[in-house]
Order: sequence, then C-alpha cells, then structure tokens
Amino acid sequence: MTGLFITFEGPEGAGKSTNLKIFAEALSEAGCQPLLTREPGGTPVAEQIRGVLLADHDEPVAADAELLLVFAARAQHLQALIRPALEHGRVVISDRFTDATYAYQGGGRGIDPQRIALLEDWVQGALRPDLVVVFDVPVEIGLERARARNALDRFEREPNAFFDAVRSTYLARAAADPARYRIVDASGALEDVRARMQPVIDEVLERWRA
Amino acid sequence: MTGLFITFEGPEGAGKSTNLKIFAEALSEAGCQPLLTREPGGTPVAEQIRGVLLADHDEPVAADAELLLVFAARAQHLQALIRPALEHGRVVISDRFTDATYAYQGGGRGIDPQRIALLEDWVQGALRPDLVVVFDVPVEIGLERARARNALDRFEREPNAFFDAVRSTYLARAAADPARYRIVDASGALEDVRARMQPVIDEVLERWRA
Repeated sequence: MTGLFITFEGPEGAGKSTNLKIFAEALSEAGCQPLLTREPGGTPVAEQIRGVLLADHDEPVAADAELLLVFAARAQHLQALIRPALEHGRVVISDRFTDATYAYQGGGRGIDPQRIALLEDWVQGALRPDLVVVFDVPVEIGLERARARNALDRFEREPNAFFDAVRSTYLARAAADPARYRIVDASGALEDVRARMQPVIDEVLERWRA
Repeated sequence: MTGLFITFEGPEGAGKSTNLKIFAEALSEAGCQPLLTREPGGTPVAEQIRGVLLADHDEPVAADAELLLVFAARAQHLQALIRPALEHGRVVISDRFTDATYAYQGGGRGIDPQRIALLEDWVQGALRPDLVVVFDVPVEIGLERARARNALDRFEREPNAFFDAVRSTYLARAAADPARYRIVDASGALEDVRARMQPVIDEVLERWRA
C-alpha cells in the first residue's frame, strides 16, 4: 500500500496556502485525512535549514549553496516525513517541492536545469509527485497580493523578471507532462478558484478510493 | 597567477588546529602570509550551516541531508573566500576540506564514496587541493586528547568504530595519491610533530617561491 504524493506549486500570491487548506478540508470531509507539509521545511531540522535560506545575509549567497541547502532540507523531509507517510498509505500534500526548485533556482536564478536534475535524482531516486497542482496567476497580481500580505523575504524582493521566469518555468513543466500536472487559474475571487479546484479534488478522491 | 591550496586533515585530537598555527607562523616568518580558514564554515553563511551540522537535534539527521549541508557550506566557502584568494595568488590553508567528507560521511557514516564524488564534481568542478596534509594519530590517543579538551559535539560522541573508519579512510586516500598527500605522525610531543612538519613547510615555501 503506497499513498498519494501531491504537491502545490505556484508563484508568490497565487494563494497556495489558502487553497491548500480548502483542498484539504474537502478531502477530510470525504474521509481522507491528508498529511499537510511544506518546503523548504516540514521537519525541525529542515525548518532550521529554511531559516538559513530565507534569512537576510550580509554576504551574497552562492547560487550553488542555495540549491544544495534546498536539497539538504528535502533529503531530511523525505526521510523523516514524506517517505514514511507514503509507505503508510497516506495522502501527502506538500506546499512546494522540486518543481519550485526548477522554477526559482532554475528559472529565477538561472541555474542549468540539468544540474538540478542531477541533484533531484541523487536525493529522490525515482520518487516524483503523483500530481503537481500549479496555481497560476499573472506576476503583477501575485506580487500585489504578496506585498499586501506581509513583509517580503529574500525571494519576494526579487525584480519582476525573476517572477516572470518562475511563472514560465512552471507553465512549461506542466505543458511537458500533462499526465502529472494540473493548472488551476488562481486569479479572481476565492470562490472562483475553489470551483476550479473541484475537478482536481474529485480526481484525488477517486485515486485515493481506488 | 594562481595560489596554492593546502588542506589540513585528521581525526579528532590529531592537533590540526595547533599544528596549523605553527605551520602558518613558519610560512609568515618566511614572508608568505597564508589565508587560514576552516570547514565546515569559513564565511558567515557557511558558519551558519556549520551551526546546523554540529548542533544536537531531537530528530535523527538523514545522512544525505548531512552530506548536502556539508557541500552547501563548501559551495559558499569556495565562491566567497577560497576561489577569489587563489585567483589573487594567495596560499590558502583550510582546516578540513573534502577529504574530511570522504572520511566522516563516507567512512564514518557509510555513504557510498561514488555518491560523494558526484557532489564533489558538482560543487568543485576540477578544483582539488594542491596538497593535503594528513595528521595521523591512533584513535584512542586522539579521542583522549579531544575529550580532555572540551565538551564533545555530535560527531565527537560517535563510537570508536566510527573513528577507526575515519582514520583508515584518510590513510587509504593518502596511499592512493602520494603526489598530493603528506602524512604527518601526530602522536607524541608537540615539538616532535613540529619537526615532522618541517619537510612539508619547506616544500610549500619552495612551491610558493617558484
């Protein structure tokens, strides 16, 4: 019995966290208790690494160092939380996973995707999400929402071109593997996004019952 | 003009730090001002990563996560400190480097050396130390010295078999590449070790003057 591994992806202000709660409630009401987690982080050690990643530093952080920190946190997350939960048949939903690495460190920072793929294989072996839900929103709308919400972290202060690259990387990856990716239009009112998520909720419940 | 990259290696209690000071003073007296640094660490961000590595954690740290943290700190160290210094022709001496990763995470933790080699290439490209000075001491003597010195960190509390593997990994690597490795017997009195280091000091000064 293996579970179902679902990841939520999307740029700043796509409403991932809010939609994740709504999504999880819908699953719970149907009797499926998903395990909710996030990246970078998800375990105490991985959250410490998240702290190093998101903090402001006086010295510029090397792109390679950032990428290795992301995968260090992921290795811990996989061993301590995700793999055991999947082996117990749980539905695991992670707020971000390796697609975010391709989008932010690859698209945003310009690291060669082949270098990322090498670490992905090194850390994950054959493990990939069963379903990647990409919340898509125009960059300006997303950043406006993120800026209205809170103080910006090291990533959220990047210029718009960075987020253009993040968004187009997500869309390109979704287009290249339609069997594993679902794009949800995250612009407009929460109720509209909720309605657009419904087919994905139905699909997950169907696979979970199977 | 490229500098000279020297690393000091050895197990707990081999006297690396003390010998490094003596070594550096001898170089300085001859007019060569080496840049001294250490791993994991050497820059503010890399030292933060060191903090995560050496701290006690309530959850077991995944071996892969530990290894990726070591290389994350190394990537930062290389970009922010080591590569610029070598490009300026400096002699750089680092207290530990990638041989320690083979010894501790490979020999000690049992990670496949080919997995380490893959990250070594990924992070360092072609860069390898010009000279690796291995301070060798029997495990029991080394641990006795380390335990007399201070409170033990997460590594220093490992069982003796761990340090047997660390030592034999260092010796095997030195034996396999005698052109780049020098073994210094670090048992006995400081003055004796000082005398045994002299040929290495002479060699470094000769290469530096060339």
